[in-house]
Amino acid sequence: MSNKPLLSKKRFVAEYFQEETDNMWVVFNALSKGRDVINLGMGFPDFASPDFLLVALGRVARDPSSHSISPSRGHPSLIQAICQLYSPVLRHDIEENEVISNFGADGILYIALRALIKPGDEVILLEPAFESYASLIELCGAIPVFVPFTPPHNTTGPSSTDEWRLDPTRLESAVSSSTSLLLLNNPNNPLGKSMSKEEIKIVADLCKRHNLLLLSDEVYEWMTYEGRELVRVAAVEGMWKRTVSVFSAGKMFSVTGWKLGWAVGPADLISRMEEVLKETAYCGCTPLQLAVGEGVKRVAGFMGTSEGYLCELRRDLERKRDTLFTALVEIGLSPIKPSGTYFMMMRIPRLMAILATADTSTESYDFTFVKWMIREVGLAVIPVTPFCGKQNTVIGDTLVRLCFAKKDSTLAAAIVKLKLMKEKLDKLS
Amino acid sequence: MSNKPLLSKKRFVAEYFQEETDNMWVVFNALSKGRDVINLGMGFPDFASPDFLLVALGRVARDPSSHSISPSRGHPSLIQAICQLYSPVLRHDIEENEVISNFGADGILYIALRALIKPGDEVILLEPAFESYASLIELCGAIPVFVPFTPPHNTTGPSSTDEWRLDPTRLESAVSSSTSLLLLNNPNNPLGKSMSKEEIKIVADLCKRHNLLLLSDEVYEWMTYEGRELVRVAAVEGMWKRTVSVFSAGKMFSVTGWKLGWAVGPADLISRMEEVLKETAYCGCTPLQLAVGEGVKRVAGFMGTSEGYLCELRRDLERKRDTLFTALVEIGLSPIKPSGTYFMMMRIPRLMAILATADTSTESYDFTFVKWMIREVGLAVIPVTPFCGKQNTVIGDTLVRLCFAKKDSTLAAAIVKLKLMKEKLDKLS
Repeated sequence: MSNKPLLSKKRFVAEYFQEETDNMWVVFNALSKGRDVINLGMGFPDFASPDFLLVALGRVARDPSSHSISPSRGHPSLIQAICQLYSPVLRHDIEENEVISNFGADGILYIALRALIKPGDEVILLEPAFESYASLIELCGAIPVFVPFTPPHNTTGPSSTDEWRLDPTRLESAVSSSTSLLLLNNPNNPLGKSMSKEEIKIVADLCKRHNLLLLSDEVYEWMTYEGRELVRVAAVEGMWKRTVSVFSAGKMFSVTGWKLGWAVGPADLISRMEEVLKETAYCGCTPLQLAVGEGVKRVAGFMGTSEGYLCELRRDLERKRDTLFTALVEIGLSPIKPSGTYFMMMRIPRLMAILATADTSTESYDFTFVKWMIREVGLAVIPVTPFCGKQNTVIGDTLVRLCFAKKDSTLAAAIVKLKLMKEKLDKLS
Repeated sequence: MSNKPLLSKKRFVAEYFQEETDNMWVVFNALSKGRDVINLGMGFPDFASPDFLLVALGRVARDPSSHSISPSRGHPSLIQAICQLYSPVLRHDIEENEVISNFGADGILYIALRALIKPGDEVILLEPAFESYASLIELCGAIPVFVPFTPPHNTTGPSSTDEWRLDPTRLESAVSSSTSLLLLNNPNNPLGKSMSKEEIKIVADLCKRHNLLLLSDEVYEWMTYEGRELVRVAAVEGMWKRTVSVFSAGKMFSVTGWKLGWAVGPADLISRMEEVLKETAYCGCTPLQLAVGEGVKRVAGFMGTSEGYLCELRRDLERKRDTLFTALVEIGLSPIKPSGTYFMMMRIPRLMAILATADTSTESYDFTFVKWMIREVGLAVIPVTPFCGKQNTVIGDTLVRLCFAKKDSTLAAAIVKLKLMKEKLDKLS
């Protein structure tokens, strides 16, 4: 029998694994275990999903004809519902061959990147960017290039995401001859920024000028505040043919465990994505597709009105956002009011005081702060450096992300913890 | 604006796409459209899923706490049920960290191959092999190496899959210094062969001698006939540490649209697979995991008895197998009686007669035959060359696959069509 090790490094295709440090969720979950911790960390709602969707799944469950495999792109009833909802929204008469569904928006992003970029390509990301983008891009052998939003000069006191601006010069200078795609997240997680018409125009012009594809992750599409609607980049003139927009049932209906996402875009790009899908999971889950299809048809019927589930969700989240923001300001902290998503960033207070209690000297400030918060205060939030590139110099490690898609009672308990934090910090200083 | 094409070949990572011909399912579905065609082609049951599973999903659907994301490896209740069912079966006291679930067995195979092989590796497949294996291996930059089962000399009249044998010399000669993994499918689709103890020992010895990993796709695990139980390669001495066994809720419970699979294996290999899963879909669907967890617990309670759903399914499928086999023999065709799966292979009759009606001269015989069957007879079956390597010389294109996991009425109607086929062929000759 051979003596070579069974599981040698040489066996593994994914060399980037070697570099990877411990997954942030694993570390924080381990730290929270056994403690009485309020969790504003992970981005999922702790309130109930809409009853009409659960009733739909219950009905589908009992129908014996709803449990066989669907076509790769998705069950026709889901695809038709998506066409109905998004045709007015994206100002394009969407055909069935311009839609594809898969397991989660993550699954959609995966097949999109596999299908649309090649090794050696550069992909532009606006920083901060959802933490898995960079590793997905690297998994495809391509290179993420971060272009940071420019933060306001003032770094204390309350501010808003409108003060974080896209710098056209900086964006332009990120394009090289290897750039093939820009991966947008609008509204942006973790920043909570819903981009303005002007900013979307800057992105669109860049893509047209340099002939780039655009992958627009719009999973927080319905969570925009103060009466603003999301500016849809696929609807900008000349952009349809180069844009794949990505959406999520988990986000739309607060069912993050359903893992059902979809993309809408031109038939040639969608068709490439289907080829990758067929090589991997083949198709999504039929019963969940059927229930979500009913849900999407239902919300499509309320479009253009100020009623229905999506409007209620938005009003509810805006109220929660305002509650948290007001409380943070009153406590004397420095939150950044988001125009979209269910996340709010907050500046880490009194950095130096915290540092005195640091576990290790090599760890970034935001990780130290979050660990201290879990341990000493009993509140879990999320550090922002994992959402930044390695060269990140603009945002640094001075921010944490709070999720406000939580029950009012959870938010109230979190606010008590934040007050406690402030008191502890004041004592330390 | 640049003049370079928006969607140039250079954009695509997956160069193998360029070579790929039309997907067989797409071609045959298009051909069947608008015709009154009985379908023994695609491998899914047309009978109802077990009521207890649909009731479980109905109950889960209405529980508001069942719709958030699960841990990457799967909801603990599913993982625990899997440990309970497979510990006696695989003769290993399975720990929770030795299990992972994902979207479908396809999703499991994908993360396993990404995690366990690297570009340039060679992966051994027993031919015929499930059609997506080779392309999955190529997607990872590795090379599929086919080792055919040796068919019996006699090529007319009824036969059995026991006569298709694994040749140890041929298997041995397929190993090179680049071989890192053997991908087994037992029982084998499309052959319908459940391997003997002796054959499994040959495979296990080879893996131990050359220090290979073994990925054992056992999704048809419960579909073995004539009182035989599946021989589990992971239970062979010295094999646990190098074997990942793959299973499917879709196959176990006749819910192919649920797309829920799982793998059981040593913690170090499963942990690598989890890393890939986290980079792609992150986790499976919570409500389906919960319902399947209940289903798995239920069948685990019947293990070792001759009662319960799995025994009923097996008896039912064995009866269907015998009905189809007897009918094919009576009609004067040459079926190969399967010892496992819900597929039966059949030799293509009177090859030369069919060839006279061929659409094109470059097409393989089995495709010509299947197209003729759909068009002239109204019965869809599946050609076997897509399950073979490009160098395939042993099996040739003389076989088609029939799925007998169909209602008795569907099978009866198919048998009428097969009689019609024989009459048409006799007239042609």
